[in-house]
Amino acid sequence: MKPWMMNLRKIEPYVPGEQPKSLHVTKLNTNENPYPPAPGVRRALAEMTDEQLRRYPDPACMVLTDAIADYHGVGRDQVFVGVGSDDVLAVAFQTFFNSDKPLLFPDISYAFYEVWAKLFRIPYRRMPLTEDFRLRAEDYKTENGGIIFPNPNAPTSILEPLEFIEDIVKSNPASVVVIDEAYIDFGGESAIPLIERYDNLVVVQTYSKSRSMAGMRIGFAIGSPEIIAALNAVKFSYNSYTMNAAALSAGVEALKDEGYFRDCIGRICRTREEAVTRLAELGFSTTGSAANFLCVSNSELDAGRLFRDLRESNIFVRYFDKPRLADKLRVTIGTPEQMEVLYGFLQGYRQS
Amino acid sequence: MKPWMMNLRKIEPYVPGEQPKSLHVTKLNTNENPYPPAPGVRRALAEMTDEQLRRYPDPACMVLTDAIADYHGVGRDQVFVGVGSDDVLAVAFQTFFNSDKPLLFPDISYAFYEVWAKLFRIPYRRMPLTEDFRLRAEDYKTENGGIIFPNPNAPTSILEPLEFIEDIVKSNPASVVVIDEAYIDFGGESAIPLIERYDNLVVVQTYSKSRSMAGMRIGFAIGSPEIIAALNAVKFSYNSYTMNAAALSAGVEALKDEGYFRDCIGRICRTREEAVTRLAELGFSTTGSAANFLCVSNSELDAGRLFRDLRESNIFVRYFDKPRLADKLRVTIGTPEQMEVLYGFLQGYRQS
Repeated sequence: MKPWMMNLRKIEPYVPGEQPKSLHVTKLNTNENPYPPAPGVRRALAEMTDEQLRRYPDPACMVLTDAIADYHGVGRDQVFVGVGSDDVLAVAFQTFFNSDKPLLFPDISYAFYEVWAKLFRIPYRRMPLTEDFRLRAEDYKTENGGIIFPNPNAPTSILEPLEFIEDIVKSNPASVVVIDEAYIDFGGESAIPLIERYDNLVVVQTYSKSRSMAGMRIGFAIGSPEIIAALNAVKFSYNSYTMNAAALSAGVEALKDEGYFRDCIGRICRTREEAVTRLAELGFSTTGSAANFLCVSNSELDAGRLFRDLRESNIFVRYFDKPRLADKLRVTIGTPEQMEVLYGFLQGYRQS
Repeated sequence: MKPWMMNLRKIEPYVPGEQPKSLHVTKLNTNENPYPPAPGVRRALAEMTDEQLRRYPDPACMVLTDAIADYHGVGRDQVFVGVGSDDVLAVAFQTFFNSDKPLLFPDISYAFYEVWAKLFRIPYRRMPLTEDFRLRAEDYKTENGGIIFPNPNAPTSILEPLEFIEDIVKSNPASVVVIDEAYIDFGGESAIPLIERYDNLVVVQTYSKSRSMAGMRIGFAIGSPEIIAALNAVKFSYNSYTMNAAALSAGVEALKDEGYFRDCIGRICRTREEAVTRLAELGFSTTGSAANFLCVSNSELDAGRLFRDLRESNIFVRYFDKPRLADKLRVTIGTPEQMEVLYGFLQGYRQS
């Protein structure tokens, strides 16, 4: 080891998910939206001015926070934007979870919660999901220094109702509760209206899934003005200019075409319902999804082997080799044509 | 105070620099480039595909790291990219400065070094510049857990020669030395060639100044493969997808037009030399700049008052109300036309 390596941060390198280069892949592995973003988004990028490129972007991201505030009917001081919801969540972890009591999140959930908790040295407890993969409200009424979970949860795809969220937020006035609504637009009811009544609630959403803009890295949080001011204070202490001019322009434009947005969401939801039926005919059960993916299993089949066999046929899905997930696959809802490729493969598939 | 506020991270809110909305402002306050980015950059944005927007960007940013590696004649495993050099530097602080010994940087330097040192709880020592605002090599041969400084330094604009850099890097084999070359393209000699011989050296550059792309947030580090692997490990543990597709495309394109780049740099350097002469005629001394700004003073004038008077006439420059800087102004080199507005104001200016 070289002498300067003594002071390196010790960290387990994370291996990012596979992004196949081949165009012949049926890509149902990263929960991207199969449809293009609203047509205005590309126009907004084409119309960017030299001034926008040349000058520092507005660190307060006002054009985008205003557009999101208008869209969701909240104040401009109730919106915080970041480089994808991962950025928003990482800033939220650093801002709100500075207690000696444990941060609570489900044992089966978004894998990055544990990564950030470790990175920022936040004590945490993973609360087991019930046998049918639901969160138990009682688990989140125990001593804690903060609470976070996705709704719908991932990779289970299961939605908890708004009363469940409200019960937890109301029961924890001394904690910040972060609801990660990455998939909420695909059939769930957002907790945003609860913001008016609970100033310890933060709702995080993203443009990556429902708005087909994973490539532009835009996420946001909605909360009380005190919550948003606290997030901004931490962000500005780290890097003031994280949202580039292209993300700001594209992010504003994407909110203008509600018809297109609803049409894409509708198509994905119909394809999902069709997929539940078709997969059932092929012997697969699903967990009742409110997201743009299904969590599927087939007791006759080894899921890990199915994952690898699909991959060899250029059909990419996601497999988690973890307790209670190792018998399942996570399948993103693609276009009807992409789904037919999957059904076609499964139709003739046997494991001997 | 509300109960959930107990666990907020305690932080002094940073107030971002002023970005005037008015088009009538002569904006010489944030070291932006007065010329547009290479014409290909806007075309690259206009040609972005739906696939680039819809899908997650490559977390390894391969197209951009390859382009930067080719441009600078280093290996693809010797380049790390980030959301502006602020992001690159913040990741470098977290990666390399984990010692109980102090990080060393100049007392007059980029203000964010101290902010990050505090934020990441890194012990540090600010080493005083000499009377003529130079770094002293001896200061950086004392016990330390890392070294960082800009070259040319900011806001002094003074360049140290390559032998000075090499002396410090060579004398500190047990420390990582970060050279922040935000302004190097305006007349300095980059330390990048030293990378071949010293694996404890990291050189950080940005697209914000010389490439007229502050709005796109692109910075990069060049170092040994071990240095770059360490930066990537920390980055991937935090947020894998920070560079959006637009930044990747624009960043690659900007490197293709070397003629345009050299022409812009040449124009700014000529305007700077002209400015030194013109300002001297108006009674202002400068520090000998190798950057796209000048650090100017006039013993007859109160700099703080001049700053405010300029501002009232819609001429924005930068003033630092700090020891040894309070008698100076930092003036970005604009177009010749913008500089004439400044000279015109100073021509008739008197403080009674």
